[in-house]
Amino acid sequence: MMYNFRNFTNVANFVFGQGSFNQLGAILKQRRKPTSAFFIFFVDDVFKGEALAQKIPLQGQDTIVWISAQEEPKTSTVDLITQQIHDDFNTLPTGVIGIGGGTLMDYAKAISLTLTNPGSSTQYQGLDLIKNKGVWCACIPTLSGTGAEVSMTAVLSGPEKKLGIKCDYTVPDQIILDPELTKGVPPHQRFYTGMDCYIHAVEALTGYCSNALGDAYGEKSLALCRDVFLNHENSYAPEVNEKLMIASYLGGLSLTYAQVGVCHALSYGLSHVLKYPHGIANCICLNQLEDYYGDAVSTFHQMVEQHQIPIPQHITKALPEEKLVALAKVAYDLDHMWLHALGKDWKAKMTLEKLVDLYARL
Amino acid sequence: MMYNFRNFTNVANFVFGQGSFNQLGAILKQRRKPTSAFFIFFVDDVFKGEALAQKIPLQGQDTIVWISAQEEPKTSTVDLITQQIHDDFNTLPTGVIGIGGGTLMDYAKAISLTLTNPGSSTQYQGLDLIKNKGVWCACIPTLSGTGAEVSMTAVLSGPEKKLGIKCDYTVPDQIILDPELTKGVPPHQRFYTGMDCYIHAVEALTGYCSNALGDAYGEKSLALCRDVFLNHENSYAPEVNEKLMIASYLGGLSLTYAQVGVCHALSYGLSHVLKYPHGIANCICLNQLEDYYGDAVSTFHQMVEQHQIPIPQHITKALPEEKLVALAKVAYDLDHMWLHALGKDWKAKMTLEKLVDLYARL
Repeated sequence: MMYNFRNFTNVANFVFGQGSFNQLGAILKQRRKPTSAFFIFFVDDVFKGEALAQKIPLQGQDTIVWISAQEEPKTSTVDLITQQIHDDFNTLPTGVIGIGGGTLMDYAKAISLTLTNPGSSTQYQGLDLIKNKGVWCACIPTLSGTGAEVSMTAVLSGPEKKLGIKCDYTVPDQIILDPELTKGVPPHQRFYTGMDCYIHAVEALTGYCSNALGDAYGEKSLALCRDVFLNHENSYAPEVNEKLMIASYLGGLSLTYAQVGVCHALSYGLSHVLKYPHGIANCICLNQLEDYYGDAVSTFHQMVEQHQIPIPQHITKALPEEKLVALAKVAYDLDHMWLHALGKDWKAKMTLEKLVDLYARL
Repeated sequence: MMYNFRNFTNVANFVFGQGSFNQLGAILKQRRKPTSAFFIFFVDDVFKGEALAQKIPLQGQDTIVWISAQEEPKTSTVDLITQQIHDDFNTLPTGVIGIGGGTLMDYAKAISLTLTNPGSSTQYQGLDLIKNKGVWCACIPTLSGTGAEVSMTAVLSGPEKKLGIKCDYTVPDQIILDPELTKGVPPHQRFYTGMDCYIHAVEALTGYCSNALGDAYGEKSLALCRDVFLNHENSYAPEVNEKLMIASYLGGLSLTYAQVGVCHALSYGLSHVLKYPHGIANCICLNQLEDYYGDAVSTFHQMVEQHQIPIPQHITKALPEEKLVALAKVAYDLDHMWLHALGKDWKAKMTLEKLVDLYARL
C-alpha cells in the first residue's frame, strides 16, 4: 500500500472573474523586481490587432510571440522558439505567458520547460522525463474546454508521436480565468472545444483508473457541460461563458486522476496523421463510438442537433489501407489511454485490426 | 473593473487515497536535506498510544505536540506553543504538520505563521494582517467536514473575539487526504463535523458574495453531503469515507469565493461565549434557522432523524439576558458573514435585538 499515490502539484495561484485579464499587469509587476526581469507572451495570432492584444501589459524587453493555432502544437516549433529565445536574450525570461486555447497554453507550458532542459522537446514526451523546473508560467485561456490551464500535460506532436510532456513541473504557476475572453469565439470552435471538455468528463468517468476525487470533478464538469450545451439558447451569455470555463477547469482536474480513453486515442491518430485539430477530431470520433460510450454519444448527438454544428463524416472513406494502418498504429501506442478505457487486459479487447475497422467507420 | 478579483493561493501539493498517510515519511524526506532539518507534529491527543501515532515518521529532533481538541483553538495556546518552540530549538522547524480535525489543522496553520511573525496571534486575527510567509505547513485531516485542510483561514478564539487569521500564507503547502484515517471517528462527532461541511455548502450557495466557481464547488460538496448522510446505511464504508472527505475539501474551496452566513455567525457566539465545539454549535443553530435556510433545514432534520444524533435544544433557556446580549454581540460583529448572508444593507435586516431573539430560540 505504500507510495501508491502521486503527490500532485496544484496551479499555485488562480484568479477567476469577468474582466480579470485586466489584472495581469499587476500580477506580473510583483515579479518584475529585478530590473532585468522580462516576460515572453505566446499569443494566438487571431488576436493580432484586436483589443485583447492592446491590453497585454508589455514593458521593457517583454516580447510577444504570435503563434497560429491552426495546427496543433509541435515539438519542432517548441524547439525553434526555445532556440530563438536563447539567441535573442542574454538571460532566461522571468516567465512565459500563454494566451489562447489549448495550443497556446501547451506551447507556454512546454517552452517554460525546454528553456531550462537542454535538447529537443521530443526527448521529454512522456511521464516524468523532465529534469529541471521550468521558468515561471502563466496560462490564460481564451477558449474553454481543453483543461490545459490546469492539467499536468503539454501535448505535442513530434515527428514520431503525439504525446504529452507530463510531470509536476508542467502545471502552470498562475492562471487567470476570465470568461469575458471567450466572448468572440466562433460558434463551431466553441462547440468543438467545449466537446473536448465533455469528452474528458465522459472518458474520465468511464474507465478503470478513476478514483473518487477525479469522479467528483468529472461529474461536476459533465453536469456543467450538459447544462451549457443543452439548456442555453444564448451560448454567449456571461453566465454561460463562466460555466463553460469552470467545466473546462474541473474537467482538467478530473484528468489528474483518470485518463482519457477510446475517443482521445482515436482522435490522436486523426490529428497526428491527418492534421485534424484536436476538438473536431474528438467530435468526429465520439460521433461513432456508441459501442463504448452509449448514452454519452446520444447526448452528444442531441447537442450537435441543437447547435447545428457540422461534424464531418466518411473522412476515411477514400483513404488507402496503409493510411488506416498508420492511424491505427498511432492510437494503439497510447497504452495509458487503453489501460484506463479497457483495463489491464486491453490487448485482448483492442487490436490493430479492430482499430483499422474503427477508423474506417469515421 | 480592475483589480477586483483576488489572486488566490492553492494548496501546493496534494495526495488523495486510502492509506496515503503512509507516504508522509517519503514526503518529509524530500525536505530533510539539511541535517538540521526537523518537523513539529501537532496531533490530536485522542491518538496517543493509537496505531496512527506509531506511524508518524519521527526522526532526529522531530517533536510531537499533543493537543486536545475538546476546546476550540485559542490564541493563548498558539502563543504558548510558539514561544515553547522558540525556547526549545535554536532554529525554526523545517515545517509543521497538523494531524486531526479542524482544531489541529488550524493550530498548525496558525503556528506556522506565528513562528515567523512576532507578537501575539491576536494581532493577526483578520484579513491580510500577516506580514511574513510562515514555515512549511502540512495538514492531514482525520475527521471530515471543516475544510480547514484547504481554506485560507485559521480560526482562533481570542480573549475578545473568535476570528480567523486569513491570508494567502494561511493555505497549507501540503495536504494528505487519507479517508482511512476517519474510520474510527465516533458517530456523533462524524455527524456534527460532517454537518459543518453541509452548512458551508448551504451558506456559500445562499448569499450575495458567491460566484460561479464557488457555486460549482458548493453544489458538488452539497450533493456529496446529501448522498453521504441520506443514502448510506453504513456510514463507515470506505467509499463513504472518501465521499465525505472530498465533500469537505470541495466545501472548503467553495468558501474561497463565498462566505459562511447566519448559521456560522450564530455558532461563533455559542462557541466563544458558551464553549460549544464548532460542529455541534452549528447543528444547534441550523436546527432553528428555517426562516433563513428553509429546505436545507428540512433536509438537516431528515439527516438528524436518520442518524439518530442528539441535537441539544433549549440551551439558552436558563441564560440571563446579559448572556444573550453577549452572544448577540459576538455574532453581530461578524460583518463579512452578514454581508454575504443578507447583503450590503444587512444592518437594516439584522439587529442586536433580533439576534437576542434568535439566540433565545436555541
